[in-house]
Amino acid sequence: MSILIKNTNLISMADGRPKIEESMDVFINNNIIEKITKGIEPKKGTKVIEGTGKVTMPGLINTHAHVAMSIFRETLDGYNLQEWLENKIWPMEDKLIGKDIYYGSYLSFIEMIRNGCTCINDMYFLPEYSIKAAVETGVRLQTTRTLFSSDVDKRLAELKDLINKYKDNDTISINVGIHGLYTTNEDDLKKFLRFAKKQNLHVHMHFCENNKEVQDIITSYNVKNPVDVIEKYFKDIPAILAHCVKLTDKEIEDISKYKNISISHCPVSNLKLGCGVAKIQKMIDNDITVSLGTDGQGSGSNLDMFETMKFTALLQKGINENPKDMPAYEVLKFATINGAKALNLEDKIGSIEEGKCADLIVVNIDKENMKPLNNIFANIVYNAKGTNVETSIVNGKVLMENRKINYIDEKKIYNECEKIIKRINNKQDQGD
Amino acid sequence: MSILIKNTNLISMADGRPKIEESMDVFINNNIIEKITKGIEPKKGTKVIEGTGKVTMPGLINTHAHVAMSIFRETLDGYNLQEWLENKIWPMEDKLIGKDIYYGSYLSFIEMIRNGCTCINDMYFLPEYSIKAAVETGVRLQTTRTLFSSDVDKRLAELKDLINKYKDNDTISINVGIHGLYTTNEDDLKKFLRFAKKQNLHVHMHFCENNKEVQDIITSYNVKNPVDVIEKYFKDIPAILAHCVKLTDKEIEDISKYKNISISHCPVSNLKLGCGVAKIQKMIDNDITVSLGTDGQGSGSNLDMFETMKFTALLQKGINENPKDMPAYEVLKFATINGAKALNLEDKIGSIEEGKCADLIVVNIDKENMKPLNNIFANIVYNAKGTNVETSIVNGKVLMENRKINYIDEKKIYNECEKIIKRINNKQDQGD
Repeated sequence: MSILIKNTNLISMADGRPKIEESMDVFINNNIIEKITKGIEPKKGTKVIEGTGKVTMPGLINTHAHVAMSIFRETLDGYNLQEWLENKIWPMEDKLIGKDIYYGSYLSFIEMIRNGCTCINDMYFLPEYSIKAAVETGVRLQTTRTLFSSDVDKRLAELKDLINKYKDNDTISINVGIHGLYTTNEDDLKKFLRFAKKQNLHVHMHFCENNKEVQDIITSYNVKNPVDVIEKYFKDIPAILAHCVKLTDKEIEDISKYKNISISHCPVSNLKLGCGVAKIQKMIDNDITVSLGTDGQGSGSNLDMFETMKFTALLQKGINENPKDMPAYEVLKFATINGAKALNLEDKIGSIEEGKCADLIVVNIDKENMKPLNNIFANIVYNAKGTNVETSIVNGKVLMENRKINYIDEKKIYNECEKIIKRINNKQDQGD
Repeated sequence: MSILIKNTNLISMADGRPKIEESMDVFINNNIIEKITKGIEPKKGTKVIEGTGKVTMPGLINTHAHVAMSIFRETLDGYNLQEWLENKIWPMEDKLIGKDIYYGSYLSFIEMIRNGCTCINDMYFLPEYSIKAAVETGVRLQTTRTLFSSDVDKRLAELKDLINKYKDNDTISINVGIHGLYTTNEDDLKKFLRFAKKQNLHVHMHFCENNKEVQDIITSYNVKNPVDVIEKYFKDIPAILAHCVKLTDKEIEDISKYKNISISHCPVSNLKLGCGVAKIQKMIDNDITVSLGTDGQGSGSNLDMFETMKFTALLQKGINENPKDMPAYEVLKFATINGAKALNLEDKIGSIEEGKCADLIVVNIDKENMKPLNNIFANIVYNAKGTNVETSIVNGKVLMENRKINYIDEKKIYNECEKIIKRINNKQDQGD
């Protein structure tokens, strides 16, 4: 299968500079971007996608999510975090079975495709069911068997199986997901990190999301601050740390010494849970690799990475009271090439370059929300919606074209998800 | 012309309580909501809109904008406010002619219709051209001839003409727009307020948007803080104050004594210009009427009131570090009934009630971003996009149906706006 995107405005994100190239053709052979130039003629059998008046850019990369939690969307409003976890989420999660994870993930992957996100980094349980949904929908998934200080050997064995099973897979990759320092004791942490090193895999971990977590880490690891643990144990372990809301300026400077550490910023979830706003501009000033996540829909509401880009840019400008902070192109990097770096997939995705995998989106800019086009990068970050994405391609496969997803029965998935939440809430038993 | 919306989920916003009524019919006769009940049979000639599986709710009300500034969308990125104004906006505004105001406003009204906003409060110059676009597109517009200490008598005469011309108009209303205290001297302010009182109209004014403005007011009015000016002159003048980012807790308490004062919160613009975040929860705790605005697209990027609702809720939760702040239904009130109160249009719009004007929207909730439907109010505030709005009705007239706007040549408007910004940037003369 080959695809030719003709006459498009190309934002390749290739060389780290704000650049838009007009009237470009992108030729995709099987799963690989084979040629990017002007004036490519379609071969017989090549599918042609008209790119005139549109922007072609890398698919967005979501580096922190819990995709099965789509079924818990908007169960949070009016609760504080601890109440919500103890009274809502944990009792509901206890009732989840494999099929629920499959359908919840499936709904999330539909959301991803419809919103121009092509790759997502997940952390939850029963990952085989999410993987099954990812393979069926065609999205690129990085996932794990989440680790914490419970059933340690069993979980490590399961994770090892997962690693072996997907080590040569094109679109499924595995990392070592450690839930957090506050849910893992020091001995188990050492064990997990030895495992990661042996498997040559990076770690994905929640870190410094709220004040309680910071205090718990300080107490249980007997350190002055949580970054002391990173400096002690993560010196040579590549890791993506989600949230980092509570890092102080000094801690940001300390952690910035470790180029193996990147940060997944989840602004919407951090606001909704009342955690605060991470100091992203300070991280950038210290040359830390920042990527973007939505978190699960239980707290983050949705998987819309365009919205996450907008929150990222605006929060730094507003909180720092400096409109020069966070230029639009920097934020585009967070959501594309930096995401690829964080997931150790930089050789495959994150930019549109010859030889990379074809994970890209075609965005309609001929709409009222994008006019006039004074600054294409700012227009994408502040005005494009997921619904401006017309076509989504992952690993050379067209998942959505002109906003149509032909191979998925979306209504069936919606209905299954409604049934799951009804069952979990026991509403079914009460006859409503 | 009569319209019947059948079997809809109705969020009327009528009695100030979170309420959704299932399987309701809404009958509209000419411009008025005549009947709301179950089981209304369509009369011959009645247009029937199927509401099954959809939410019908009041059209959103935007209480602070500069609609012609759509043509300056995304000219701000990378500038600070003063640089942007002095080097970009003011020189560009000097070149604007009536036709530009007309097309810029027209583009904004398309944005409004497509995003479920039915009424907007504008402040700019050459208002006749915006009014012409509003009448042609059918949106509800409140506008003014902006006043400041320049050509005072001429402007007041023009404003008086405007008031007389539109005093009996169904969809166009006029207020007394005073640009700000920092651009109006004390004598002129008194004159403007006498005028407002004589005309029995409310005032629309920028207030305490940033620190410089606060200092300018303190200096030029010789007061301890800007609220002193409000307490001295606005005691019995109904007024809608846009922004109020810099009000302290004490000032909020002081201003809350005046029930004639409401506040238009513009969170996106306030962040983008680096102003900060207004203390909206504190205002609510003090029983101040808060409505929502986007500001002009020059700073606010777009006119998407769903997005503005989301920013409003999340910012208060995040900045106050309290997820119980700003429940979704409160924010829905800001964008509907409170907007109507602020604009002195509460008898006409802001809720779906028999006898009120038919300004309402039909929202598709059978989409991936709204599933499952655990909390309809939170789903609307956090997950609905403008693109979920299928049908927009203003004053009994269907402006958009199933996302189609048949009476407007949208591409022509886009092209005219692109031409305007090219002309203003002198690009035309350079042959590109």
